[in-house]
Amino acid sequence: MTSKDLFQPLIQRTDQQLDLALNQLKTTSEQLSAAMRYSVFNGGKRMRPILVYAAGQALQAPLTACDTAAVAVELIHTYSLIHDDLPAMDDDDLRRGKPTCHIQFDEATAILAGDALQTAAFEVLLGSESLVTPAQQLALLKELAKASGGQGMVAGQMIDLASVGKQLDLAALENMHRHKTGALIIASVRMGAIAAQASDVQLKALTAYAAAIGLAFQVQDDILDIESDTETLGKQQGADQLLNKPTYPALLGLAEAKQKAQDLVSTALSALEHFGAEADLLRALARYTIQRNH
Amino acid sequence: MTSKDLFQPLIQRTDQQLDLALNQLKTTSEQLSAAMRYSVFNGGKRMRPILVYAAGQALQAPLTACDTAAVAVELIHTYSLIHDDLPAMDDDDLRRGKPTCHIQFDEATAILAGDALQTAAFEVLLGSESLVTPAQQLALLKELAKASGGQGMVAGQMIDLASVGKQLDLAALENMHRHKTGALIIASVRMGAIAAQASDVQLKALTAYAAAIGLAFQVQDDILDIESDTETLGKQQGADQLLNKPTYPALLGLAEAKQKAQDLVSTALSALEHFGAEADLLRALARYTIQRNH
Repeated sequence: MTSKDLFQPLIQRTDQQLDLALNQLKTTSEQLSAAMRYSVFNGGKRMRPILVYAAGQALQAPLTACDTAAVAVELIHTYSLIHDDLPAMDDDDLRRGKPTCHIQFDEATAILAGDALQTAAFEVLLGSESLVTPAQQLALLKELAKASGGQGMVAGQMIDLASVGKQLDLAALENMHRHKTGALIIASVRMGAIAAQASDVQLKALTAYAAAIGLAFQVQDDILDIESDTETLGKQQGADQLLNKPTYPALLGLAEAKQKAQDLVSTALSALEHFGAEADLLRALARYTIQRNH
Repeated sequence: MTSKDLFQPLIQRTDQQLDLALNQLKTTSEQLSAAMRYSVFNGGKRMRPILVYAAGQALQAPLTACDTAAVAVELIHTYSLIHDDLPAMDDDDLRRGKPTCHIQFDEATAILAGDALQTAAFEVLLGSESLVTPAQQLALLKELAKASGGQGMVAGQMIDLASVGKQLDLAALENMHRHKTGALIIASVRMGAIAAQASDVQLKALTAYAAAIGLAFQVQDDILDIESDTETLGKQQGADQLLNKPTYPALLGLAEAKQKAQDLVSTALSALEHFGAEADLLRALARYTIQRNH
């Protein structure tokens, strides 16, 4: 059984929960609704929802307690991809092998679909009162907001855009990734833990795990941009090099970048040392981070 | 003392609270922070925050209980203006007499500043635990999310864009405005009421008030687009006609549009009939809606 097979039931659950959430939040504009659904169901890996569920599982929470958090992080992730792909940003026509939202619809619709998906993420968490306590709801909302906005993901995108064509050192590159992708990956794990009523010690260990795999994921992305091909990636191979984007292989060399990814996975696994077999899914995810080919 | 003088202390309080909130949510990107501040402090009328405070005052809530709601609605409003002004949307270079965000900065920065301001609105409400109860916090967040997203404001913008150049009847025009501006105006009043622990009866009356002034405000906007001049408006006079946008004067004629605005103000005042003098600010706001010249 490969790692991917392990995740399959959770990917299916995520898709079902996303479908349910988008039905409940049905917008009054069919065009908007179509664009939101198009981008949400565009073949994503569902890595963030799987992290939510896997963190919940590590603390033996029922899946139902994690559902809204899993949906919320994926909606935020989807909104960020729609906006990142816009002509004024990364100007990507292709995402996971399909036309990006502004190509399939138009630019205005893509901007608004992203906007509505961000709001929807908060709405989904606000609708979870039957599954978690009010204190948990507020804690989940705080995690999501802090990771998504001007102190997290959006700041990362801004730093990324400002970095194109510049010489970044390793610290600056990590700062960018810590904001752009790391914050939401950490939030995903922490939200699963919060839904599971984690203790402070557990939360701290899981945060260390998430910080390490978030960075490993990014290093591997940079490696794949060089080593994979366009068809497997579902986006233009070599795009980072073409845009002269700073990457780990460019800064460290390919061999050292691979070693760094490996070391980060080891760090992630060490952070889980006081967890039992119920954290095996988190362990599999850590390994998968650098085994994947897209 | 004119209506405008009446609102001045609340405008000042709003500006102070916005400044405080943006300081606390300080982003790690200076460019992003500058763009957010530029648009938030761009001479807005602060109508929505004033509505929050005025609704709170009608139920004798302390101003402090209303602060985060006042800030949150203005942040949502500001984000929506930044995105509405983008080239792919209304393509406006001028907002309140100043360059729009994407002109002053660039398009990518404007998209991200809008995104971060939306998140910030939720974050501000999540930081209000010392001022309101957890139940109030969750209720405030729900009001804001419902009014902002794909069932409210964003759907309205989508409907608006899809309507340009089309013949809309009165029902379709009102449906658009109810989403695009009405939802957030109603939410502003309801959030002030929720911060003041309103009863269901009070909330119902204040919702009726808000629905009426929200529409009156929009009818007056359409009238000003015809009757005012570019300098007073701070945006291009006649822009709606130029874009062939559906408007109340176009559908009803100017005289009947003015009568409709007057009738809506009367409806708003009637909804307040069981409130005492503490609702006088809400009454003044209703009258101001159609007295303003920009």
